[in-house]
Amino acid sequence: MSGKHGEWVYETVEEMGARFGIRATEKLLDEQTPYQHLEVWRTERWGNLMLLDGVMMLSSLENYLYHEMMAHPALQTHPAPRNVVIIGGGDCGTLTEVLKHREVESVVQIDIDEAVTRAAERFFPELTAHNDDPRVSLRFEDGVAWMKNAPSASVDVIIVDSTDPIGPGTGLFGPDFLADCHRVLREDGIMVGQSESPFYHLPLMLDYHRAMKAAGFAERRSLLFPQPVYPGGSITGTLARKAGPLDELRPLADEVVTRYYSTALHRGLLATPPFMQEALGEV
Amino acid sequence: MSGKHGEWVYETVEEMGARFGIRATEKLLDEQTPYQHLEVWRTERWGNLMLLDGVMMLSSLENYLYHEMMAHPALQTHPAPRNVVIIGGGDCGTLTEVLKHREVESVVQIDIDEAVTRAAERFFPELTAHNDDPRVSLRFEDGVAWMKNAPSASVDVIIVDSTDPIGPGTGLFGPDFLADCHRVLREDGIMVGQSESPFYHLPLMLDYHRAMKAAGFAERRSLLFPQPVYPGGSITGTLARKAGPLDELRPLADEVVTRYYSTALHRGLLATPPFMQEALGEV
Repeated sequence: MSGKHGEWVYETVEEMGARFGIRATEKLLDEQTPYQHLEVWRTERWGNLMLLDGVMMLSSLENYLYHEMMAHPALQTHPAPRNVVIIGGGDCGTLTEVLKHREVESVVQIDIDEAVTRAAERFFPELTAHNDDPRVSLRFEDGVAWMKNAPSASVDVIIVDSTDPIGPGTGLFGPDFLADCHRVLREDGIMVGQSESPFYHLPLMLDYHRAMKAAGFAERRSLLFPQPVYPGGSITGTLARKAGPLDELRPLADEVVTRYYSTALHRGLLATPPFMQEALGEV
Repeated sequence: MSGKHGEWVYETVEEMGARFGIRATEKLLDEQTPYQHLEVWRTERWGNLMLLDGVMMLSSLENYLYHEMMAHPALQTHPAPRNVVIIGGGDCGTLTEVLKHREVESVVQIDIDEAVTRAAERFFPELTAHNDDPRVSLRFEDGVAWMKNAPSASVDVIIVDSTDPIGPGTGLFGPDFLADCHRVLREDGIMVGQSESPFYHLPLMLDYHRAMKAAGFAERRSLLFPQPVYPGGSITGTLARKAGPLDELRPLADEVVTRYYSTALHRGLLATPPFMQEALGEV
């Protein structure tokens, strides 16, 4: 805490002996939901900042990086994505990016915690502005159970926009859930999941690859991209496809306006850096 | 400070209301050189950590990202790099990467502060292990003056591996120094300079482009890459070529072993993200 400038809001990653702090001017929300501790702060320079269980989820300033990278690589790899499912994603930032794609006919979003979406409506309204799009169905229930009950071969793209593999997000990293994703995807289906930073949590990224492999996804690719509020300032999304290549992309349609993503960048990020390749060789 | 775990070493970026901390267990060096305040800490998880004037310069754990990206993109763009000059770079990490290229016949490194190199020898010996390579000449003097006095059209690649544009590094971002770089490069010469993070210091990146343009470099490209200890966890290196394209690369030779850099990634990073393109449109 400090007087003149407001107070520091920290996320500390004990296992890396590191922490990141953003100076906040006002706490806008502090709520214990049935699932997690939800905070929203007004900050000096980052707009609003949401934390879940003390972990920074998004800031107004730069959430586009993560949300674009959770949506566009998977959608541009699929030859004709019509039906999309988002697991998690309650802030609706990824949903906003998905809705930019005209070929998408339906998006079902399943986040267990309705309080996150209600907070986003208040404090990140730019991310929820399209929630009334007729293609959207918002469900507030357990994503693991939803996927278990979903019909086989019924979805083109699954996006797992989850918290870390602690708390309510844990099941979303396990082989049972991923096997259900594999089953629910159509034959040319593709999934993407947030898979942590290789600089901070390489073992978690490797575990995720192992679980995806066990679930039947033969080929996987982790794309590394910057995200300043996440530990170490970058994070990966891991793509996995039921069948077919991961490196054949459709060019981005003109109506999909982005700030970070581009087809050329996507191609480059598909080239797994050697230090990650080496680690993944053990999977 | 805290007892059990050692103490937090912070770098605070006031203008972004943000700070990054690494837990240290011991202060290994604390020296006021003629030019700057030099600290080296032993940390819990990052190996050793060097700071100059309170700004994190490098950690043992992940300095390869920055050093590879300061060396290889420029060298792989040049058709036949023989003579290389490094301005700054006293920790010798960039030098180590340059020396992996067999076609390089000479590297002159000019860092104003010999204390940095002496500290690197003690605390980052893996970076100084090749300083006795017969191709290397280390000079401890003012890089701005050195460049002013260097013969025209005498160098293939100039790498400006500088601190931020405060303190001793200030002159390295200005149009006079950059005009000297332009003059000293051969006709197919190329330069690269560290140009800050577009998330934290976009105005500095734009100023750098303006100064490069004023110095005669018609085409420039800022490559964005991760570097966890730098503000926001990523940084750019800006390439500028006297004549010729920036997007024609030689494939990396087998002997140049890297952990982050690859030719495919380099191609992708040449695709300037739209948010940076938009800002650079004003330059």
